[in-house]
Amino acid sequence: MRTILEAQIAESSRAVSDMTDHVGRFRGKQLRGALVLLAGDATGNATDEHPAIAAIVEMIHLATLVHDDVLDGAKVRRRVACVNERWDNQTAVLLGDFLYARAFGLSTDLSSRLASRVLSDATRRICVGEIEQAALRYDFEMPQETYERIAGAKTAVLYGAACELGARYPGGRDEAGALLSQFGNSIGLAFQIIDDCLDLVGEEEVVGKSVGNDIEDGKITLPVLHVYEHTDEATRARMRDVYTGVGVEKRLSKLRAVVELRPGIEFALARAQALVREAQARIQTLPPSTSREALCALGDYVLERSW
Amino acid sequence: MRTILEAQIAESSRAVSDMTDHVGRFRGKQLRGALVLLAGDATGNATDEHPAIAAIVEMIHLATLVHDDVLDGAKVRRRVACVNERWDNQTAVLLGDFLYARAFGLSTDLSSRLASRVLSDATRRICVGEIEQAALRYDFEMPQETYERIAGAKTAVLYGAACELGARYPGGRDEAGALLSQFGNSIGLAFQIIDDCLDLVGEEEVVGKSVGNDIEDGKITLPVLHVYEHTDEATRARMRDVYTGVGVEKRLSKLRAVVELRPGIEFALARAQALVREAQARIQTLPPSTSREALCALGDYVLERSW
Repeated sequence: MRTILEAQIAESSRAVSDMTDHVGRFRGKQLRGALVLLAGDATGNATDEHPAIAAIVEMIHLATLVHDDVLDGAKVRRRVACVNERWDNQTAVLLGDFLYARAFGLSTDLSSRLASRVLSDATRRICVGEIEQAALRYDFEMPQETYERIAGAKTAVLYGAACELGARYPGGRDEAGALLSQFGNSIGLAFQIIDDCLDLVGEEEVVGKSVGNDIEDGKITLPVLHVYEHTDEATRARMRDVYTGVGVEKRLSKLRAVVELRPGIEFALARAQALVREAQARIQTLPPSTSREALCALGDYVLERSW
Repeated sequence: MRTILEAQIAESSRAVSDMTDHVGRFRGKQLRGALVLLAGDATGNATDEHPAIAAIVEMIHLATLVHDDVLDGAKVRRRVACVNERWDNQTAVLLGDFLYARAFGLSTDLSSRLASRVLSDATRRICVGEIEQAALRYDFEMPQETYERIAGAKTAVLYGAACELGARYPGGRDEAGALLSQFGNSIGLAFQIIDDCLDLVGEEEVVGKSVGNDIEDGKITLPVLHVYEHTDEATRARMRDVYTGVGVEKRLSKLRAVVELRPGIEFALARAQALVREAQARIQTLPPSTSREALCALGDYVLERSW
């Protein structure tokens, strides 16, 4: 899959290949690609085209990362300078567009149109989620469901699409597709919840990317929502000031000083754990296999990761 | 086509629909959509799906505009505030992504995959062209062919794809497709050359968008290349200073003071005219029809536009 990904984002233009080489170094866990292959195998649906689909899913993920780093103003990703930092925001926008277009183009070469359909729909929903998230900045009173809908659109959608394609591609098999789609969505939401926790309590050197971004961007995540809900009005006012005060620096350390985040983190981790356990239980209806166990292990891994 | 475009970019999310309503006001000449329909009709290939393809092509164009305005730091488009100005760059990146994803998604609903293939390839080439353009900033000595290749990738590619799809969709008809693709490419390159001229000599109120952007961004366009090639070294040095000097303001009026741009503009306009005439002559092999004449008229329109 890795080789397919590298070969497929290769581009004859030197200016572009410099960049695709660079983002190739971002490649990390490749969980989404792995989900395509494992979901296919666990549901008895592995085809010759699954590795190509896995590479396309990873390429779409890479595009969202490159654009995400522009949106977040991030500087470091997996210990590699972000495209927006190494070149500039303009280049990062174009490179993300290039990766999206390349991914969609590759999906049109597959024998079934299912991948193009599922992935363009997933990409659209990811964008809608990000736009809604921007509209809900500084909203300390959004219901947990709203947070989860947005976090879901951001991350769970592509996990769900990867699992659904693994189980369904090239078509039919609606029941297996729905089962694995739900599995992927739950694991993806758990992943995002953990990600949001790491942005609050992780160390930059361990996480491998900038932390405290959500506070700088006014993104109110689950641990903060929980803490805010359960504290007094005076503390709430100080929390709001940390997020919204003009010229405030090092907002993350200030927030840590203003309020004890641990109960919020514990609440969020418990929610992530419940989502993973529910997802793991769901796929016990599949026949036992190494891949089914790997999917379960992947859920545990999401819970345990510190980077 | 306009109604299809509006209905198809509609989105249930309020945050997104505010923005799609806003960019709906950018809709201008819709030349690319018109090309799909006219190329279909002129080659005897109009199908029920042509209006949907036209709307998808316009949606992709809208996505490139929204991202382009981020890249250019533009403030006004067709007398309407740009998305990056009305909201922010982040939102503009996401909205562009949304429009791309929606367009690809709609193309996967068509009966033939040709549109998905041609349009994802065109989008990829547009991105590569923009990235190469960024890499060639401040290059006053690039050959005219290089300028045309980049200008072509930026604009001609989507004109060519629109015409090709009009003539070929749902498939086969390679000869008509190649003929109309060449027609669209030539007209599109002429359009970009005129656009580059307007950015140098147009008035903001007439053009309906900011002018002088290319100079601020270090984009060396055909009129400037020509003037630079035919002037003395002292003037060349002053031209370079206008583009590259730190803290220089109103670069466009300074450039006009440093060098007479008119010969470059005349050279570029002559090139645009030659491209249009060649394109018009090429489609005289098609049987006479109102649509064929409309395609020819559209070429004249590209030459005559001042906005």
